[in-house]
Amino acid sequence: MDEKLDYERIIMGIDPGTNVMGYGILGVNGKTLTPIVLGAIELKKFGDHYLRLARIYERVLGLVEQYLPDEVAIEAPFYGKNVQSMLKLGRAQGVAMAAALARQIPITEYAPLKVKQVVTGNGGASKEQVANMLTHILRLDTSKLPSLLDATDALAVALTHYYESRKPATTGGAGSWEQFLRQHPDRIAKR
Amino acid sequence: MDEKLDYERIIMGIDPGTNVMGYGILGVNGKTLTPIVLGAIELKKFGDHYLRLARIYERVLGLVEQYLPDEVAIEAPFYGKNVQSMLKLGRAQGVAMAAALARQIPITEYAPLKVKQVVTGNGGASKEQVANMLTHILRLDTSKLPSLLDATDALAVALTHYYESRKPATTGGAGSWEQFLRQHPDRIAKR
Repeated sequence: MDEKLDYERIIMGIDPGTNVMGYGILGVNGKTLTPIVLGAIELKKFGDHYLRLARIYERVLGLVEQYLPDEVAIEAPFYGKNVQSMLKLGRAQGVAMAAALARQIPITEYAPLKVKQVVTGNGGASKEQVANMLTHILRLDTSKLPSLLDATDALAVALTHYYESRKPATTGGAGSWEQFLRQHPDRIAKR
Repeated sequence: MDEKLDYERIIMGIDPGTNVMGYGILGVNGKTLTPIVLGAIELKKFGDHYLRLARIYERVLGLVEQYLPDEVAIEAPFYGKNVQSMLKLGRAQGVAMAAALARQIPITEYAPLKVKQVVTGNGGASKEQVANMLTHILRLDTSKLPSLLDATDALAVALTHYYESRKPATTGGAGSWEQFLRQHPDRIAKR
């Protein structure tokens, strides 16, 4: 899947968790979608919380510098079982976001339910169903898929962002912040 | 308080919140403690969540690059009223941590109660009581204090870290991760 980075638009999807961080980068040329790279970082082997956060930050920054995405889409659950796990999840999301913010790349969040709904039509779809649909839409090599379920989730977020960003802007409304950013990319750099 | 950065050790304290981020940098020479800089960033004026996160990241990175702290101490509440606010707080902490992690600076967390207890001897002390004690210990210019209550909290974390790091290591135990880092700073850069 490693091709020349000759795309109109590059969308990076991230699924930052405290145990695994998935990432998937999608190249867009007209209506042709190409998965450029997808992968997952096992964080469990780093016992220490800070080493995990440092690894997420370094990896996301590395991907940003290597693939130069125009937009970053993050899978972000808004509810969790307890405040402790949400604080840790928030930190994992925060360091991943910092790597995008450091390069002035606009970020859009999608709830897991939204991603499943957009990609499969079913908000309650399993990881496997999401992966199967991605295989179909993006013609992924299925022989590599079983070990890549965390990565396909991230690629699914990138795909969701692609679909959502193609929707016409609602008339009369102020529009979302991400729409504003896409229409005025210069407004970010001046901050 | 802006002096030549000629210290044996520089400790940066951060109090990252979603509305205000306080910071305070402490210079250590033997038993002489000097507040090098302290301040607070109002984040409320940035309506957008990402702009706030970006501001925290940029400011912390800027401070790290300007003052070259050896250690970063973060005031980090472990409990909050709900999962949503903890997720946001986690993100604010995450982007602040990313700026320290980006420069391989070891991070230590302190709960607010711990900071109050170490600085004033009373875990239930008010912001004003913490500020008053800091004024006394560090000979701060009290005429500037009223507007700096968020900053003094951050300086209090740096002071807490200084006191805690001077404690002898417990015998027989493995020691904390931050002690390990202080004793083996080379172990971080190799990561």
